[in-house]
Amino acid sequence: MSETLKKPSKADLRRDDLRARLIDIAEARIRADGLGAVKARELAREADCAVGAIYNVFSDLNGLVMAVNGRTFQALGAEVARSVLAAPKDEPQAELITMSHVYLRFAAQNTNLWRALFDLEMSTEMDVPQWYLAELGKLFALIAAPLRRVFPDYTRDQVELMTRALFSSVHGIVLLGLQKRISGVPFDKLEDMIAILLSNVTSQAST
Amino acid sequence: MSETLKKPSKADLRRDDLRARLIDIAEARIRADGLGAVKARELAREADCAVGAIYNVFSDLNGLVMAVNGRTFQALGAEVARSVLAAPKDEPQAELITMSHVYLRFAAQNTNLWRALFDLEMSTEMDVPQWYLAELGKLFALIAAPLRRVFPDYTRDQVELMTRALFSSVHGIVLLGLQKRISGVPFDKLEDMIAILLSNVTSQAST
Repeated sequence: MSETLKKPSKADLRRDDLRARLIDIAEARIRADGLGAVKARELAREADCAVGAIYNVFSDLNGLVMAVNGRTFQALGAEVARSVLAAPKDEPQAELITMSHVYLRFAAQNTNLWRALFDLEMSTEMDVPQWYLAELGKLFALIAAPLRRVFPDYTRDQVELMTRALFSSVHGIVLLGLQKRISGVPFDKLEDMIAILLSNVTSQAST
Repeated sequence: MSETLKKPSKADLRRDDLRARLIDIAEARIRADGLGAVKARELAREADCAVGAIYNVFSDLNGLVMAVNGRTFQALGAEVARSVLAAPKDEPQAELITMSHVYLRFAAQNTNLWRALFDLEMSTEMDVPQWYLAELGKLFALIAAPLRRVFPDYTRDQVELMTRALFSSVHGIVLLGLQKRISGVPFDKLEDMIAILLSNVTSQAST
């Protein structure tokens, strides 16, 4: 068996090690100071490598940030999924609110990493890697499941539209709330906003 | 009468003229290339003044951007208010959807100027000028009016919470939609998303 797998060369191993270290360093920098703190020269100094070596393992700094974003997305997805398991069964409305509150808390506790998910410039949709879309798809599937129970008459397209509308809505509340752009909204008011929105959207269905 | 008003000096007039020209230049730059295009040296060259002269009329570049944002906010508010006047009477739900579609269209047609409203870093809420909050308040009042008709039993606080929740929600749909972060959502789908969200939130009230 093992003979059919190509044994990694020392160069491969060094490359993988540098790649992992660069992601760790970039993650810590984004967490502390945001996207603007990802600078090739400083990364190279911290990773103890040449600046050019970064571009041997990533096509550009955006590629490195995408790798950090992948980790952030997985951590977010895992927390949302855990909250679904812990939520009471057969209460799809409560499930949606719980998930959204987890999203709010994750964004509040990891603000810079979460902002990087959305602030990274991608010139075209083509730049979005497949694995990124797959992670997004998994998150949407978690939202769609209770929605299908709330709206049993919805077509597949309608569920999908509502899933994206609600994700975007909760994202907007969290984003403007954490930016404090809508003055004087304390954290628990944000939780209320999310709950009132989702309750109203979904309670209509049962009448 | 006129003797009680202080006649502006030539220096005052020059200052006002420079101020207006700098706002025009910054507005054109933001419109074309976004917030990052507002740079003191380039502004000074275009306005044909010394770099230091900029700081005689604005405390810093953020102050200049805030002035541009003030114009943008007024233009946005005027379009939303016009759409309310044109909307059919006694249909608060349709009014909310119309306003939101105007918001989407304004953001799509003036993306960089609209982004600047939200992307300008303000270190604390204290940095937000009073006139800015007043413009935001006017926009919220336009949203609150139909909401009060949809939810006649809501307290003042509940109307306010719902106003901010819906503004943030529509903002989230527009933002992620225009960023194309939720892959494959064409413009008319964004309009549908807004309509389905607002219809569901408000139709529950009449049952």
